[in-house]
Amino acid sequence: MERTQSMAAMEQGADLQPWTREAPAIRSHECLIKVRSCGICHSDIHMIDNDWGTSRYPLVPGHEVVGEVVECGDAVRGLRPGTRVGIGWQSSSCGTCMDCLRGDENLCDRSEGLIVQGYGGFSAHVVVDARFAFPIPDGIETDEAGPLLCGGATVYSALRYAGMRGGQEIGVIGIGGLGHMAVQFAARLGNRVTVFTSSPDKAEFAATLGAVDAVMVGEDGRPQTKRRFDIILNTAPRHLAWNSWLNRLDSDGTLTFVGIPGGAAEIELGVLLGKRRRIMASAIGSPAVITEMLSIADRFGVRPMIETFPLEEVNRALQRVRDNTVRYRAVVKVA
Amino acid sequence: MERTQSMAAMEQGADLQPWTREAPAIRSHECLIKVRSCGICHSDIHMIDNDWGTSRYPLVPGHEVVGEVVECGDAVRGLRPGTRVGIGWQSSSCGTCMDCLRGDENLCDRSEGLIVQGYGGFSAHVVVDARFAFPIPDGIETDEAGPLLCGGATVYSALRYAGMRGGQEIGVIGIGGLGHMAVQFAARLGNRVTVFTSSPDKAEFAATLGAVDAVMVGEDGRPQTKRRFDIILNTAPRHLAWNSWLNRLDSDGTLTFVGIPGGAAEIELGVLLGKRRRIMASAIGSPAVITEMLSIADRFGVRPMIETFPLEEVNRALQRVRDNTVRYRAVVKVA
Repeated sequence: MERTQSMAAMEQGADLQPWTREAPAIRSHECLIKVRSCGICHSDIHMIDNDWGTSRYPLVPGHEVVGEVVECGDAVRGLRPGTRVGIGWQSSSCGTCMDCLRGDENLCDRSEGLIVQGYGGFSAHVVVDARFAFPIPDGIETDEAGPLLCGGATVYSALRYAGMRGGQEIGVIGIGGLGHMAVQFAARLGNRVTVFTSSPDKAEFAATLGAVDAVMVGEDGRPQTKRRFDIILNTAPRHLAWNSWLNRLDSDGTLTFVGIPGGAAEIELGVLLGKRRRIMASAIGSPAVITEMLSIADRFGVRPMIETFPLEEVNRALQRVRDNTVRYRAVVKVA
Repeated sequence: MERTQSMAAMEQGADLQPWTREAPAIRSHECLIKVRSCGICHSDIHMIDNDWGTSRYPLVPGHEVVGEVVECGDAVRGLRPGTRVGIGWQSSSCGTCMDCLRGDENLCDRSEGLIVQGYGGFSAHVVVDARFAFPIPDGIETDEAGPLLCGGATVYSALRYAGMRGGQEIGVIGIGGLGHMAVQFAARLGNRVTVFTSSPDKAEFAATLGAVDAVMVGEDGRPQTKRRFDIILNTAPRHLAWNSWLNRLDSDGTLTFVGIPGGAAEIELGVLLGKRRRIMASAIGSPAVITEMLSIADRFGVRPMIETFPLEEVNRALQRVRDNTVRYRAVVKVA
């Protein structure tokens, strides 16, 4: 295989269009993956629009990739042709810094993103460092696996590093692609979950995900609820009245962010003081956490709720994500 | 003993003056303490000035109290007449909430302060719940023990809950009553400590406390240093350019506050994201942490640097604390 077909944005903000490129020869530590399916994450939109100033064009989005290994470099262990694997945001790390040595490859300063330094999953084939291709447990359907790789890993890692251990009260702000998986992880692993949303239909839906309570967030951005939470996870993109939310955390409680609103958060440090509360943020997940998350999702029945689109309709799918009308994660069937 | 002599503020902001009051009979769980010495903390000033709206007058300040047990209620265990003890900020807690049951009495919603609900150490005698009177190890001088009880406990607890474990890079912002003890705890327990100050004389002094480096903080409030810290502890009362400080934290690093500047901190949550950093705040310490801290101070040689004043000069001492000219903690010899 010397050439591969992709759907690419040829310039900032553009619709995707067919693009044929040279497929690179795989190196000893890499795998060639034949793509079956790929989820759409808001970060794909940010990259198409060059919101972060890191985009190169032609840009091939898609970083919730599921497919089969076609070929492995000679140093690859644990994968072989035919293995079904998934790839998330990260495609490489330096392997030598303290973060990498500790297994926190997602914190590596030289982390590479599949769609930043390389080409993403809206493509017949993807080449990736084998360390960042994760075998998918048999119990998880191909189309459902993609959203776990980025969105699922992000919320699972954030909850774990915020101290989720079962038996806790966990609040999830925002029920979208991330939030609807967060509710499931928290509930299935033995926590009482309260969702906070501004959409009445999502409040109703939350119970089917395992939430014990749903609270509407009004214009004032305050939580109409008592102090009781061990963890509050924010997955939404706008600033709320954070000091009120911090006040709803119990002792040693954590407000953690995977949705990062633009602009500064105004934090009254005194609100942290009396109950020794903390604020965190967390991005994607390490290879160890992704592998653990996939196993948890398989055994505890965590699945994204998806809408699927054929590859020809990838632009319609992207527009639906822009419009925030997908319930709850868009997945493109690539092959 | 039916009456006791104190130095009290008779109204908001007033100088202290002699005041005689009825000494309450001790109850079964309380001890009567004959005061020898008492440190001055900035919180005493805040209480004299009613900055927190919780002051009652006559107000007897002083919550870094050291003295001898004179009499114990019949339910008191572990203390007896003659035991040398110290008392810090907290004088009581409910004993029944989850915080208290976990040993986190300092987080109790019904926590009482010695100088809030009761009368402080600028007094011949103090009555206190025996759970909040801590035996002082023999190796610690009476006048040096007081500042450990509040200031020492506050910084030691903050460092512990921020994850201090030895072998780390720890930054301390502000070298005053709190900061100069924080440097010693961190350095003596096997960490490399960098101090951040705006006073050249304090930068020089920091080395004698065990700091390996001292960095001047300029008008822009930014740290002129590389990213390397596991913990940065703020003991100073003004807002700095916190996002720059967060950027100097290494992976999983913590910025923790014991000095709480007024007004909101403007935090760019994205700065927390890539390296999974966190923000915390911490107040005083639990009985377990205070007991551990006293033992650590004794065995590892952590001592406050103090200036002592006779009780007749308590107002001069308070003014020196207001003027921020004490090097580094004022202690009043009561008897």
